Amino acid sequence: MKNVTIRALAKELNLSVSTISKALRDSYEISEETKQRVLEVANRLSYTPNPYASSLRGKKSKNIAVVIPEIADSFFAIAINGIEAVVKEKGYHVLICLTHESFENEKAILREFGSGRVDGVLMSVSSETTSCEHICDLMDKEVPVVFFDRVLDEVDTDKIVTNDFESGYAATRHLVEKGCKKIAYLGISKSLAISNNRMEGYKKALADHHIPFEASDIVLCTNDPAYNIEIVKELLQRKKRPDGIVASVEKLTTTVYLACNELQLVIPQQLRIVCFSNLEIATILHPSLTTITQPAFEMGKSAATVLLKALDKKNNGQPKKQLVIPSTLIIRGSSSI
Amino acid sequence: MKNVTIRALAKELNLSVSTISKALRDSYEISEETKQRVLEVANRLSYTPNPYASSLRGKKSKNIAVVIPEIADSFFAIAINGIEAVVKEKGYHVLICLTHESFENEKAILREFGSGRVDGVLMSVSSETTSCEHICDLMDKEVPVVFFDRVLDEVDTDKIVTNDFESGYAATRHLVEKGCKKIAYLGISKSLAISNNRMEGYKKALADHHIPFEASDIVLCTNDPAYNIEIVKELLQRKKRPDGIVASVEKLTTTVYLACNELQLVIPQQLRIVCFSNLEIATILHPSLTTITQPAFEMGKSAATVLLKALDKKNNGQPKKQLVIPSTLIIRGSSSI
Repeated sequence: MKNVTIRALAKELNLSVSTISKALRDSYEISEETKQRVLEVANRLSYTPNPYASSLRGKKSKNIAVVIPEIADSFFAIAINGIEAVVKEKGYHVLICLTHESFENEKAILREFGSGRVDGVLMSVSSETTSCEHICDLMDKEVPVVFFDRVLDEVDTDKIVTNDFESGYAATRHLVEKGCKKIAYLGISKSLAISNNRMEGYKKALADHHIPFEASDIVLCTNDPAYNIEIVKELLQRKKRPDGIVASVEKLTTTVYLACNELQLVIPQQLRIVCFSNLEIATILHPSLTTITQPAFEMGKSAATVLLKALDKKNNGQPKKQLVIPSTLIIRGSSSI
Repeated sequence: MKNVTIRALAKELNLSVSTISKALRDSYEISEETKQRVLEVANRLSYTPNPYASSLRGKKSKNIAVVIPEIADSFFAIAINGIEAVVKEKGYHVLICLTHESFENEKAILREFGSGRVDGVLMSVSSETTSCEHICDLMDKEVPVVFFDRVLDEVDTDKIVTNDFESGYAATRHLVEKGCKKIAYLGISKSLAISNNRMEGYKKALADHHIPFEASDIVLCTNDPAYNIEIVKELLQRKKRPDGIVASVEKLTTTVYLACNELQLVIPQQLRIVCFSNLEIATILHPSLTTITQPAFEMGKSAATVLLKALDKKNNGQPKKQLVIPSTLIIRGSSSI
């Protein structure tokens, strides 16, 4: 017997293909009565769904995907602990997928999720991601996506972020208060909103405190650790050398410390540093690292909580929200004698 | 029409249920001719497989699961990079699942994989794992499992390990050569084979160099960071205080350094330390950390390569192997003035 199609079911029931499709996917938009009618005819005609579309039996995969750039950064490791703390109680499994900052990888990963393999996605976009079709396509297939940390503003979904602008401002203001006159900003990507927000906070703090700013004070690093050390050494060997650095990405901690070692620059006496970091070992570095510490665990918990509400259809019709959980400036030896 | 079962197909074809099941799962044990006969009858009778059993169409999930205790440890983050470097070229996606050192979590995760969601599993067992049924059950369902780093000896499968005994020996011998007379060994779990191998290497080195050993020189820490600091402080405040420590787990680096800070013990003058660690920032700690650095990337690559061979059925009939990739002692400031 040839496989019965959705089109044949639609004809049999005198309903649209879209309605049949939503009914089979257990969408909240379709009444229970209609879903039952569709199921009954589908069974009678031996309709065979895509193997991964388990909604026919009303069964979910019970998988949540967490799509993130990397796991070497302690922020993501801690956020995942927060996510798992929430979803495991509800019987979900967490599948972690890494994009390695690649837009192509991110698209390929999300493409896999449209056929029922996961019930929902928590994601932090890659530094290369500039458009959102791959995410919107997934949401159109009734797979809710919630952003945490790195978001795409143009996507209408729930977002859990920290106060990147205020944090960039606070980090810079702290260095100014410690006497810095020329403060550089180190980042990785031009397109990431969080990076831009932190940078804007940095620039506003300079302006508010009448510290001159030049475009060359902003230095973009790469994903190559060895090359980054050279980039930072070049910065620190300029005629008008900075006396303060705001490093907006955790991995740049090692970069800056190693560059200073190689140039025999003493931290903090010759260079004060603040780094956005959740490194547990910030305290045992030499000198101990002043950080903007993000609320990684809380962000993971909040993102997971919001996603579960979406999966339980408890947020039908409610507007999507952006939740801001503030970060903390922790002053240690790298900026303060 | 009621769903046709495997049993009905077996009756129709006069074959055993086991044969039908293997044929549907595209097992290499069944001839192509038999698989075709089974497929033809299954289609004719509109047999509907479990939604996740995609072998009926000869289609694999193209997912590889990596099941590991945690991602905070840099060893696993780097090993994953090695795994992905290999499997992505063959079009596989990597799904990372964390056990958080819990045997129950590990069993629950593996239970999910028996229905076609993943094609193969790379795993490093939790520190609580003491038996192997959950792994053998999965392998019985034709999902190959390859161990890397932390293995279960009793499971007959390929294993990628490092030379834990020799590494424990080398770390200890180094401390003896630096003049240590009382060397403690810090570990996490009693049941992990790698932990025991490292410990046996430590004990052999002490014996070979006529350094006295007492059972209380071996100190087991927990998964609670704050409590671990207290455990180590207690060790360092004994009448017969150790003058050397071999820490067999990366997370204990922070523990030991913080305990020394709190007791104002100077490393390495008053306490020499070697830690098993792949921490990138070992070099910028104060003092810089002497490490046994494991070949994490190579182990990930090798494990993935072996798994892909199993999936391509290229290793049929060949005995399972244990591949040993050696670790390296990197001497830095925490053990050597």
